Amino acid sequence: MMTDPGRFHDHAFIRACRGLPHDRVPVWFMRQAGRSLPEYRAIRGEGTILEAIADPDLSTEISLQPVRRYGVDAAILYSDIVVPAHAVGFGVTVTPGIGPEVEHPFRTAADLDRLRPLDPDADTPYVLDTVRQLVAELDVPLIGFAGGPFTVASYLIEGRPSRDYVHTKRLMFNDEALWHSLMDRLADMAIASLRSQIDAGASAIQLFDSWAGALSPPQYERYVLPHSQKVLSGVADTGVPKIHFGVTTGELLELIRDAGADVVGVDWRVPLDRARARLGDVSLQGNLDPTMVMAGVDAAIAGTRDVLARNAGHPGHVFNLGHGVMPASDPDVLAEVVRVVHAEGRVEVRP
Amino acid sequence: MMTDPGRFHDHAFIRACRGLPHDRVPVWFMRQAGRSLPEYRAIRGEGTILEAIADPDLSTEISLQPVRRYGVDAAILYSDIVVPAHAVGFGVTVTPGIGPEVEHPFRTAADLDRLRPLDPDADTPYVLDTVRQLVAELDVPLIGFAGGPFTVASYLIEGRPSRDYVHTKRLMFNDEALWHSLMDRLADMAIASLRSQIDAGASAIQLFDSWAGALSPPQYERYVLPHSQKVLSGVADTGVPKIHFGVTTGELLELIRDAGADVVGVDWRVPLDRARARLGDVSLQGNLDPTMVMAGVDAAIAGTRDVLARNAGHPGHVFNLGHGVMPASDPDVLAEVVRVVHAEGRVEVRP
Repeated sequence: MMTDPGRFHDHAFIRACRGLPHDRVPVWFMRQAGRSLPEYRAIRGEGTILEAIADPDLSTEISLQPVRRYGVDAAILYSDIVVPAHAVGFGVTVTPGIGPEVEHPFRTAADLDRLRPLDPDADTPYVLDTVRQLVAELDVPLIGFAGGPFTVASYLIEGRPSRDYVHTKRLMFNDEALWHSLMDRLADMAIASLRSQIDAGASAIQLFDSWAGALSPPQYERYVLPHSQKVLSGVADTGVPKIHFGVTTGELLELIRDAGADVVGVDWRVPLDRARARLGDVSLQGNLDPTMVMAGVDAAIAGTRDVLARNAGHPGHVFNLGHGVMPASDPDVLAEVVRVVHAEGRVEVRP
Repeated sequence: MMTDPGRFHDHAFIRACRGLPHDRVPVWFMRQAGRSLPEYRAIRGEGTILEAIADPDLSTEISLQPVRRYGVDAAILYSDIVVPAHAVGFGVTVTPGIGPEVEHPFRTAADLDRLRPLDPDADTPYVLDTVRQLVAELDVPLIGFAGGPFTVASYLIEGRPSRDYVHTKRLMFNDEALWHSLMDRLADMAIASLRSQIDAGASAIQLFDSWAGALSPPQYERYVLPHSQKVLSGVADTGVPKIHFGVTTGELLELIRDAGADVVGVDWRVPLDRARARLGDVSLQGNLDPTMVMAGVDAAIAGTRDVLARNAGHPGHVFNLGHGVMPASDPDVLAEVVRVVHAEGRVEVRP
């Protein structure tokens, strides 16, 4: 299959990422592929999520399901941010109902040896097969992704999902050299993974640094920014739009923009008009409160209209939730959100 | 015991709350009384926390322990924000390692009947006995407190601690009349509780609306602000300083100030200089990252100095952590934080 990164050059999603005029507000949903869809639950089977990701036919189908059902303007690869660390043998699993778990968490310099460089063709061929299959079938751009170094590091260090990131921050504050070594390896893995996905045909990428908002701006700037910057600049020559996302990042938005994001993901805590006033002309992604989808169609539509109104026709807007789709969300409500965005979203050409 | 609310009128803590010049930067720690102290674990016994709170001698001793050990500039009552709801028979317990749990969560208008008005003298005499005993023994101001209506509502509705507040927001979005009825009752309970603590001798109060930062500014303004405003104005005539605290409230700080807080608590995500630039001359409380205490004395001192530097001598600063003391914190590190704040914190008299 020939890949063609330029194929969706004129697509509304790609143009919105670039802040260029286009014909409709594009929309997709973080975690659109997965548990909230009955057709997903029907085919998912009993295996672990990492086994499902290792099955390109299954992953392709799961990635396609929300595109078919909702008519969203982008597909996102069904995968997980810990796939590269898992693939190089670090020893990370994803436990249903919990999330990533590590039997021997990263704690000392010796643990660096468990993070050899990622060779995507050899280590994650199934990811690339999935990307290629998807690109062959899709009529919309495919978003590839990687975990931000901070967020991946937090899983490897904590050993499980955390609210406080105590072990992570302890390492960060107490052994800065080791911290940067770890982050540098994770940045290299993210670059290798993202480049391989782009080579295989992904038209855009998203860096999920979901938990970076646990840091203050000075902490982020010192311990994370250089590495996120490295990842984003490490794929800049490919020309695909680069989206960055994290929650509770209100205070970090300027730094995230400066890290090289073309599109800054905004969680629901920061109204889009406020984010734009803070950030200038960078494109924004977001930011319907996912609990509004859980609250039913009336709340979801009211929230959708509010997001559109706050964007006020700016061409640099990719509609999304402010965080991932919650597993118990009603797909019919999400379908209605897509309908309203497409019917009522307007894009103004600015002078 | 005669109470005298004016007794600490000239104390550095009270003057800092009012933004008036004083002789040293005052410091106390949210959750200073409790699990991180070995002397607490030694006397706490096997009962539930609600049983411990119902024992004035025990609660007095627990509240005094951190004052003795650290020399902090304020004591805070050992209690819990669900005490009033528990006392009127709503059916809420506090489970060790989990937090507040409710067997029959609040879901419909019928549940309002389970929230009759609080009569502090009859319902929570033990709280007032503890306050009176503390005031008799303390040489520093005592901070009384109540839960913010949103945060208490979230426990009553979710039935347990939550990350997403789905049930809470669902009720908020889908039955606004019931939501406001619930919030109004909780506001009345908070006012009754706070007034009774002030009458018994508390010199300041803190409203813990810890989880209000789950809301966007428009959500907060519509669903929470009127009720927090009611609580704060409901104790305004007492003349004691009113502190407000919540995490991830960066986007809400202006609204919280406008709700009537004399002191705006700031979590570690918002550097104090940035908070002050946003808020003008209101007093601020905070905001050392609690994980810096967990990381050891060097990180904690560096963080403490950074907070002091960002405050830059402004008299309206009460030093604190950006959230509660983590249970595994080393008391010796907290003692060192107090020492550095007292030794190095400076208060400039502004023209």
